[in-house]
Order: sequence, then structure tokens, then C-alpha cells
Amino acid sequence: MRIRLGEARVGRLATVAPDGQPHLVPCCFALRGDTVYSAVDGKPKSTRALRRLENIRANARVALLVDFYNDEWDELWWVRVDANGRVLNSDDAATDDGAHAEFNFAVDLLRGKYEQYRVEAPAGPVVALDIVQWRGWP
Amino acid sequence: MRIRLGEARVGRLATVAPDGQPHLVPCCFALRGDTVYSAVDGKPKSTRALRRLENIRANARVALLVDFYNDEWDELWWVRVDANGRVLNSDDAATDDGAHAEFNFAVDLLRGKYEQYRVEAPAGPVVALDIVQWRGWP
Repeated sequence: MRIRLGEARVGRLATVAPDGQPHLVPCCFALRGDTVYSAVDGKPKSTRALRRLENIRANARVALLVDFYNDEWDELWWVRVDANGRVLNSDDAATDDGAHAEFNFAVDLLRGKYEQYRVEAPAGPVVALDIVQWRGWP
Repeated sequence: MRIRLGEARVGRLATVAPDGQPHLVPCCFALRGDTVYSAVDGKPKSTRALRRLENIRANARVALLVDFYNDEWDELWWVRVDANGRVLNSDDAATDDGAHAEFNFAVDLLRGKYEQYRVEAPAGPVVALDIVQWRGWP
């Protein structure tokens, strides 16, 4: 499960709004230890891109899914992690040295995995997902 | 958005547990009008396959995402629907002719889209997702 999650190029991140509506978005991410990092980058131009951040601030419970699909159903698999989300801002340095260091660490990790982030670093914020449970199938 | 959702072979379905934890699972589905149908089939052998049903019975709010990813980020897209979920059982005929007819309709629709369901019809239950909002990107 760890290899499949770590090597996946895209995941789907679910957060929950205060009214109980789940929010779902595809995202690039990088795994280190039991934490997943994902940046809010320039891809989604809508203000709705921030919904996930509002949701996490109100309810830290999130889920991230990676899966493989094709029409040969014998080959299907998925890995899902339940996690607690935290939002890291590039300007956390003003108040929290640790959070700022983790923000920079996350950006470096994402730049290591995705060429596009090496061309242009994601401005952030970064979402950190501390994994509390792994599930996989089959 | 309608064409992309309708033609997608796999989606990711988010439901929410009573404790606020989102649940996320890849699923096959078929779209007709503003309703998406997805069957619980033999693919996931774990009892956890029923989590989505319990969640929907407690909180009907769900989201379904289809997306396209590759490393050329100019080509990315996604379509997401927020919906209200209903659970249709094969034995609803005992209590509700309409639900039974809809269950059969959904199974026929799924068998039309997926060859595997023509070889072996999904036993169900079937989840019906009544779309309340469409979102797409870019």
C-alpha cells in the first residue's frame, strides 16, 4: 500500500463541509513517512479551490484515495488513507518556525516528485495529511 | 460535463460517516438524466463495501468525481457532482413497486455500459445519486 500510494501521480482528496456535504478534488501529492503533502497550486483558477482548506480547518478528518482502473477488472486495486488534515501557509514563519520549516520541506518534496513544480514552485498553502488508517483492496 | 461524466468508466464516490469521517471508494456507474446509478458488486469482498450504504442512510449528501490525469497538466480536467444518495434493494418489491422498478432499470443501465455486468448482473444493492449540483474544471 505504501509503494502504491507513494508512486501514484494523482489522488482524490475528500473533505467534509460543516453542513455534511463531502467535497472531492483530484490532487497531486507526495508521501513521506505517514504524512501526505499536497499543495494548492495554479491549476484550479476558481476560488472554489479554497473550499478544501476551509473544510479542513473546520473538520480535520479527510480521506485520500489512489486507485487503478481499467476494463480488466482482475487488475483493479485501490489504496485509501484516512487522515487528519492541517493547513500550512508560506507565511507561518511569523508565528511558528516549525510550521514554516514543514511548509518548505513539503514544497521541496513536491518539487522532487513533479517536474512542473520544479519549473514553478507551488505558492501554497500546503495541506498536510497525517495518516491514521490505511486500507487497501484487494 | 454531462458527456464526460456519462462516458467515464470509473468515478470516485465520497460519503460521510456519522462521526464526520469522509469515506471514498472507486466505483463503476451509469448516468441517466440527473441520476447516477452505481451497484455494489462482487469486486470488493470485504464487509467494508457496505460502509457507503450505511453512510448514505445516515447522511444522503454525497459527491462523485470523474477526472483525467496525466503528466501534461494542460490536459487535466474533472467533473464533480454533489448529489443526494438513495439505496435501492433488489427486494424493495415487497414494499415499494417504484423502487423495485428503479432497481431493475439501474441494473439494466449498468449492464448496458459494462460488459462484466452482462456476464454477471450485480446483485446490489444499487446506489442512486440524485444530482443537485454540477461542477467542472477547467
